[in-house]
Amino acid sequence: MNDHADNAYAFPLLIRHLWNAPLVRSPDQEIIYRDMNRFTYRELRQRVGRLANVLRSVGVGFGDTVAIMDWDSHRYLESFYAVPMMGATLQMVNIRLSPDQILYTLNHAAPGTLIVNSEFLGILDEIRDRLTSIKRFIWISDEGASMPEWPGFEGEYESLLAWESPNFAFHDFDENTRATTFYTTGTTGDPKGVFFSHRQLVLHTLATMAAFCSGADGQRIHRGDVYMPITPMFHVHAWGLPYVALQLGVKQVYPGRYMPEALLALIEKEGVTFSHCVPTLLQMLLTSPKSADVDLRGWKVVIGGSALPVGLARQACERGVDVFGGYGMSETCPVLSIAQLDPHLDLSDKEHELAWRCKAGAPIPLVELRTVDADMQDVPADGQTTGEVVVRSPWLTQGYTGNPAASEKLWEGAYLHTQDVGYFDNGYLKITDRIKDVIKSGGEWVSSLQIEDLLSQHPAVAEVAVIGVRDEKWGERPLAVVVPKAGQALAESDLKAHLLHFVEQGIISKYAVPAHILVASAIEKTSVGKLDKKALRARYAGAPPSS
Amino acid sequence: MNDHADNAYAFPLLIRHLWNAPLVRSPDQEIIYRDMNRFTYRELRQRVGRLANVLRSVGVGFGDTVAIMDWDSHRYLESFYAVPMMGATLQMVNIRLSPDQILYTLNHAAPGTLIVNSEFLGILDEIRDRLTSIKRFIWISDEGASMPEWPGFEGEYESLLAWESPNFAFHDFDENTRATTFYTTGTTGDPKGVFFSHRQLVLHTLATMAAFCSGADGQRIHRGDVYMPITPMFHVHAWGLPYVALQLGVKQVYPGRYMPEALLALIEKEGVTFSHCVPTLLQMLLTSPKSADVDLRGWKVVIGGSALPVGLARQACERGVDVFGGYGMSETCPVLSIAQLDPHLDLSDKEHELAWRCKAGAPIPLVELRTVDADMQDVPADGQTTGEVVVRSPWLTQGYTGNPAASEKLWEGAYLHTQDVGYFDNGYLKITDRIKDVIKSGGEWVSSLQIEDLLSQHPAVAEVAVIGVRDEKWGERPLAVVVPKAGQALAESDLKAHLLHFVEQGIISKYAVPAHILVASAIEKTSVGKLDKKALRARYAGAPPSS
Repeated sequence: MNDHADNAYAFPLLIRHLWNAPLVRSPDQEIIYRDMNRFTYRELRQRVGRLANVLRSVGVGFGDTVAIMDWDSHRYLESFYAVPMMGATLQMVNIRLSPDQILYTLNHAAPGTLIVNSEFLGILDEIRDRLTSIKRFIWISDEGASMPEWPGFEGEYESLLAWESPNFAFHDFDENTRATTFYTTGTTGDPKGVFFSHRQLVLHTLATMAAFCSGADGQRIHRGDVYMPITPMFHVHAWGLPYVALQLGVKQVYPGRYMPEALLALIEKEGVTFSHCVPTLLQMLLTSPKSADVDLRGWKVVIGGSALPVGLARQACERGVDVFGGYGMSETCPVLSIAQLDPHLDLSDKEHELAWRCKAGAPIPLVELRTVDADMQDVPADGQTTGEVVVRSPWLTQGYTGNPAASEKLWEGAYLHTQDVGYFDNGYLKITDRIKDVIKSGGEWVSSLQIEDLLSQHPAVAEVAVIGVRDEKWGERPLAVVVPKAGQALAESDLKAHLLHFVEQGIISKYAVPAHILVASAIEKTSVGKLDKKALRARYAGAPPSS
Repeated sequence: MNDHADNAYAFPLLIRHLWNAPLVRSPDQEIIYRDMNRFTYRELRQRVGRLANVLRSVGVGFGDTVAIMDWDSHRYLESFYAVPMMGATLQMVNIRLSPDQILYTLNHAAPGTLIVNSEFLGILDEIRDRLTSIKRFIWISDEGASMPEWPGFEGEYESLLAWESPNFAFHDFDENTRATTFYTTGTTGDPKGVFFSHRQLVLHTLATMAAFCSGADGQRIHRGDVYMPITPMFHVHAWGLPYVALQLGVKQVYPGRYMPEALLALIEKEGVTFSHCVPTLLQMLLTSPKSADVDLRGWKVVIGGSALPVGLARQACERGVDVFGGYGMSETCPVLSIAQLDPHLDLSDKEHELAWRCKAGAPIPLVELRTVDADMQDVPADGQTTGEVVVRSPWLTQGYTGNPAASEKLWEGAYLHTQDVGYFDNGYLKITDRIKDVIKSGGEWVSSLQIEDLLSQHPAVAEVAVIGVRDEKWGERPLAVVVPKAGQALAESDLKAHLLHFVEQGIISKYAVPAHILVASAIEKTSVGKLDKKALRARYAGAPPSS
């Protein structure tokens, strides 16, 4: 428009602009790596400049991809900024995948440079002859492990940074430039690449910050908090919360590899007050021998990746942990909704409160979250009618890299299909199942997540998975696999009685009680710590028929 | 990029998307107009659809401008949404301007339609023969005043809405489409038109919400608050906070014309907990006879438009009001910074705390706020060196409508020039003067705002303005005009003694004490309630020379 001044700055939504406010407001705030390093925000920003200079000097340019394999660290955080800020794309490698899957994702995203922690040398050795794109490596080692004398190793991270200037002229470019990429591991087929632009990450940062800060009384992050992620940084940008933490100017703690004792020690020493993780990890922390010595009161924890089970929520709340659910996935950057205890909810007793905490929650600003039928029509938001969860927001992957068929399926009807099934209750989404995990028994739907949740409330149950198994008579029947808590025993009859109690209360139907409840010492997990129902179904397909 | 699904929804940042989350999360929350109307969010959204249908039926199309003249109301709020959502531009008319200035802004913005409250019939009558663009009028009257039988009057607002369907298909369009426009009244020349796009308003909403929610302990808005603006909706979108309130799902109260008794009654009746206003209005509320009967504890108030004086802040804090400063202007949408009490600040005593509350504050997310010298180089952020405040953020007017010379001056050097002078202290901006109000006495700078602030702390001072007047000996000398509190008397010698006390403490220099302090019954204000220093300078140019 010709009313615009020629000189007016149009302000593209670039990751570099995330530094504008915090560098003025909180330059002396700390960023901590394990018990090893402490940097101020100002120093970390200088290290971002140094890292960009290192990367440029080894040949990284605009549009190139740089991969990283590291535990949660200041280095990872530096790559969150430096790589996109220079116009390159950061590939966050899921180091929990098998070496062959890691190889697949590296060759598929085609980075030219890999920043790699010495702890992954074994994996690297196994795949390096088959890497098709990587020409340069930057070596990381906390223990001073000497760099392998393989071709392409440019030097050790800290030494390279020390030689470079902190000044790097980060220029403006199109806000739709790809900033990050990583791979989702569905239960079928090869990993699929998702990707996010500067614009998407900046908008996700603003909306997520707005939502997480807005809690009336608890379930919120604020300028006085101390932040520590316990969702890995390779997993959907650690929920994008490191970017939010920067905006807030809070102390940030990066714990390296997740070991319960070390995490608890950091929570205690640094006074951590806000974290996020999967249910399994919270369970591990609460049951760790060291846990009893650590005062967890006031620690706020968002649970994602899998639904927060009521049993775990109760256990956490009893320790004074302000635990609540959130919802999102790799395809969604990730945050879509969070389960804050809004003033309009019925919080008349602890059980109601726990139920609200355990939902996927209410949509955050700009998110259009719907539950729809097969014709993409909204199902009633009546607290019980389930539909597929579809979504629009400004931060959803626009497809899967080089996979048009999967991309079109993801975006069928111009809404992103989550593959989750759920219902709305008072504006709060409750996920009842993954579409492919839905159990149909005698013509009626059974929610595997609900049965898991109820079984998890049994005092001797540590973990539980419910799957559908073929049944001659009913079509499908639920089957449960449970893991007892350490030192405890479980009887199938006792667990069934536990569930029948909920049948009597009208909470579930009789046909939702699994015909078989198996007791196991462990349950298979995927690389990101979710129950591997595909593996469970394969293993228990031949379970005995129900009576 | 060809990795994008054909069907992927790119999500333009449009005002209609601000409804996505709150309609799911808080459909039954209330929006209240005076003691006259109560609507739920769901109903208000339906009324937005009805208003769009009304406007379309009278001929408003994409790209047209619709003007409104009303006090703060649900109708104004409906126009905040309906007009931009249909692709038209909302002109918010400053009804405190003179009829000739109102005429100028209406003819300059060239709306085809005017929504007008019966209370402005007198103004309209005075200018209607000279209106060059307006063809249609929509009539508003709280008192049922009958519509004038002038050509172009289409009908009464409520009747028109009642006839129309709540369903209107709001389509997507370019997020850079102009959404709003209004006029700033500088102290020289004609009013200048600023304008904001959908993208800018959505980003302002997210960043402002993120910032205002983030306070560690107080100075924040949250999901449990009750919101009432006391900065007019015609004035820079009432700070954009109605859009934020929608995202939060809070109860919203629109008070009509600002009358202290009625405002206090609404605060009491509706339990208002969050507001924003200019210092003068807070002063009026605190000194209103009704004020003593209303419990103001826990009421959070952001002060903008003019700096928050320490005397007023103390008075408000003593009443339990959580008052704090914010900073912005018409050209900046408006919010740039807010003065929350961050945990890293020195809050060791009440005086320190008051000083932090009275600053312009720290930049909100994405805002690049600088204090620069004449060469656009940063001056030291040392808590004392002042520079011109220049800024970049994603929500700044890109120029003045049809005024290229002023537009280029505004954006000289690709930063928006605020015309304010200030310094940074611990990341917090303190405004010391408007550039044109700066006083240079004997070669030294005197901050008129600082002297005003110190004089306002005298127990008998209600209002104060400090200007520079020519002086043979010193070049310029400060001159103060003070208004005593009701029933109190002021002596010049007493006020000088009050200031000399601060000279002794080293807070100001001796030459900053005005040679003359005049006592007046009132001080001229501009149409938006700011001290009219231009008028004061004209009046007191011939003040007696200093000794």
